[in-house]
Amino acid sequence: MSTQSNDPSGPPSRRRKVIVTRDLGPNVMPLLHTRKGLDVVLWREDRTVDRDWLLQNIAGASGVLVMFTDKIDKDLLDAAGPALRVVSTMSVGYEHADLPQIAKREIRFGYTPDVLTSAVADLSVMLALMAGRIAGEVISLVQESKWPSVSWAPFGLCGPQLSTTHLSPTRTVGFLGFGRISQATLARLIPFGITHCIYTSAPNSPPTETRDTELATQHKLTSVRRVDIDTLARESDVLFVLTPGGENTRHLVDESFLRKMKRSSVLVNTSRGTVVDSSALAKALREGWIWGAGVDVVEGEPQVTAEHPLVKEPRCVVLPHVGSGTFETRLGMATLAVNNLLAGLDIDGQMPAELDLKNYL
Amino acid sequence: MSTQSNDPSGPPSRRRKVIVTRDLGPNVMPLLHTRKGLDVVLWREDRTVDRDWLLQNIAGASGVLVMFTDKIDKDLLDAAGPALRVVSTMSVGYEHADLPQIAKREIRFGYTPDVLTSAVADLSVMLALMAGRIAGEVISLVQESKWPSVSWAPFGLCGPQLSTTHLSPTRTVGFLGFGRISQATLARLIPFGITHCIYTSAPNSPPTETRDTELATQHKLTSVRRVDIDTLARESDVLFVLTPGGENTRHLVDESFLRKMKRSSVLVNTSRGTVVDSSALAKALREGWIWGAGVDVVEGEPQVTAEHPLVKEPRCVVLPHVGSGTFETRLGMATLAVNNLLAGLDIDGQMPAELDLKNYL
Repeated sequence: MSTQSNDPSGPPSRRRKVIVTRDLGPNVMPLLHTRKGLDVVLWREDRTVDRDWLLQNIAGASGVLVMFTDKIDKDLLDAAGPALRVVSTMSVGYEHADLPQIAKREIRFGYTPDVLTSAVADLSVMLALMAGRIAGEVISLVQESKWPSVSWAPFGLCGPQLSTTHLSPTRTVGFLGFGRISQATLARLIPFGITHCIYTSAPNSPPTETRDTELATQHKLTSVRRVDIDTLARESDVLFVLTPGGENTRHLVDESFLRKMKRSSVLVNTSRGTVVDSSALAKALREGWIWGAGVDVVEGEPQVTAEHPLVKEPRCVVLPHVGSGTFETRLGMATLAVNNLLAGLDIDGQMPAELDLKNYL
Repeated sequence: MSTQSNDPSGPPSRRRKVIVTRDLGPNVMPLLHTRKGLDVVLWREDRTVDRDWLLQNIAGASGVLVMFTDKIDKDLLDAAGPALRVVSTMSVGYEHADLPQIAKREIRFGYTPDVLTSAVADLSVMLALMAGRIAGEVISLVQESKWPSVSWAPFGLCGPQLSTTHLSPTRTVGFLGFGRISQATLARLIPFGITHCIYTSAPNSPPTETRDTELATQHKLTSVRRVDIDTLARESDVLFVLTPGGENTRHLVDESFLRKMKRSSVLVNTSRGTVVDSSALAKALREGWIWGAGVDVVEGEPQVTAEHPLVKEPRCVVLPHVGSGTFETRLGMATLAVNNLLAGLDIDGQMPAELDLKNYL
């Protein structure tokens, strides 16, 4: 632990101040409170921190632990002053942080990747099943008291089956982006009888044939193949959108892509809303180009109301960005964010998940 | 094919009549229409067959293919007359058929087990995920335009995670009844990191230690154990109700059972509504004895409206009995029902799925 003063305007002191913008609960807060020499300044209310409170309290802080709802910009960094050594966000994304400004000041930046892989993979499987089994429509039917009057029919209230059957023995699962969450989702689908896996990767990423052969062997799949985006659209029975957001991936799933998909296919987006053109997806569902969709993210969220074209579409399940929303995962994220903060306070402290900022300089 | 007359009141004839109570679609009906010597009398409307039409047309029929919506009772069998050789139902259940009456007349009875195993297992996994991830509540939140005003919180909109994590490395999945569908559901949960499986079986069923050891080895589980019902209630993180209906299993899940369950557990019922006491389950959810539930079947269905205590409960997802509701599975069921019918028309024909009626005599 450093013994330097963290307040350049005052006398040397052994104590350092950290700002924490949300109460992280009884399992995590003790990690901070029991750390010697630390003054923890906590926003105690159960809502997003007031910007004014943050600007005022961050002055002279050595570290700050934030949520993705809190903007880390030049003004905030100026308000903090030169003592600020580490910014730790409890999120896998960092669109809320001005990384060039942070890099320029030689502040270290921690985030929480990987710990949410399982939670998002679970939700992706759930949405794939719901989109196929017309969950939105059948739940509404029950809630609108229509169950008593449903006329049973041999093929009524049916959807395409995720699992293979002896009459329908192959399934191709597609991934737009094939990182950790995609691979965790694939693993969960193996016992459903999936036979083929196709995916796209960033154009100039290195070849992956060896890894793919290993994956096919490990999961007893007929094939694992990296394909172009047209093939991905045409061959997927279930398509998972799991790629980072940003300009490079904006509207990769557009009208042209959706028109190439199978009429019996389903689309799941649990990554970033910007990757999918919402209007095109709503049109695809309305006109039956694809069977169904499940999205946890929507472009322009959270400004998404009942009037949004995807929310109005009976064949689209829309969730309010709850991909990482399990107690176990949020506990893991909060713990990691605290450990990043504490390690980042020390000179040469080993942060468990530090973002390399040299590309932002 | 028999060349005997099937109408004892008329002259010998090579032709036989079969009644089919629903159009089974372009993939299945040709199996009937191309069979020589068969007159297919089809109820063509897209609703449950009229009882009067059925009583009138079944006279002199050699076979009848029915849905589970069609009652096969003494009156119908009397109306059919002595030519009736086979009843084939497109369903796994046979609560709609008076089996003692059918057995007494030496009529053979076909049904469609097994082909729906995958479809029901898929839906069971979907409901387990939905119950944990508060799917009903978060879908409503979006549909009620509340997403823009949700205040994000570190543990907001969260539920217990199905997948294990390194902070939470064990999961016990429980099965009330451990037949084919339970085992297919278990297989689908393995990649989620399930570590323990417990189940109950009918009290006087034979011991299964060897099979359980093999299952544990096959799935790399820490344990697979047959337990008493109290242990099942106490230790399950996710409990699947997958047991036949009837008096022996009525309200096995009652208030006493639910009070023993973990507060973080979820309950899924995809078998028969009668096994679960709906009022007790609604109370358990309302008072937080368990975390959530997903049910595809409800006692008294389809008389289940928005006023039903389970439909009113935000933590309960209620589906309108769509367990077998996939095109692939219904096609498999329809094909099997036709093959049962055709084989049952022949003397000593080998029906692919015939119910042994000797216990009903």
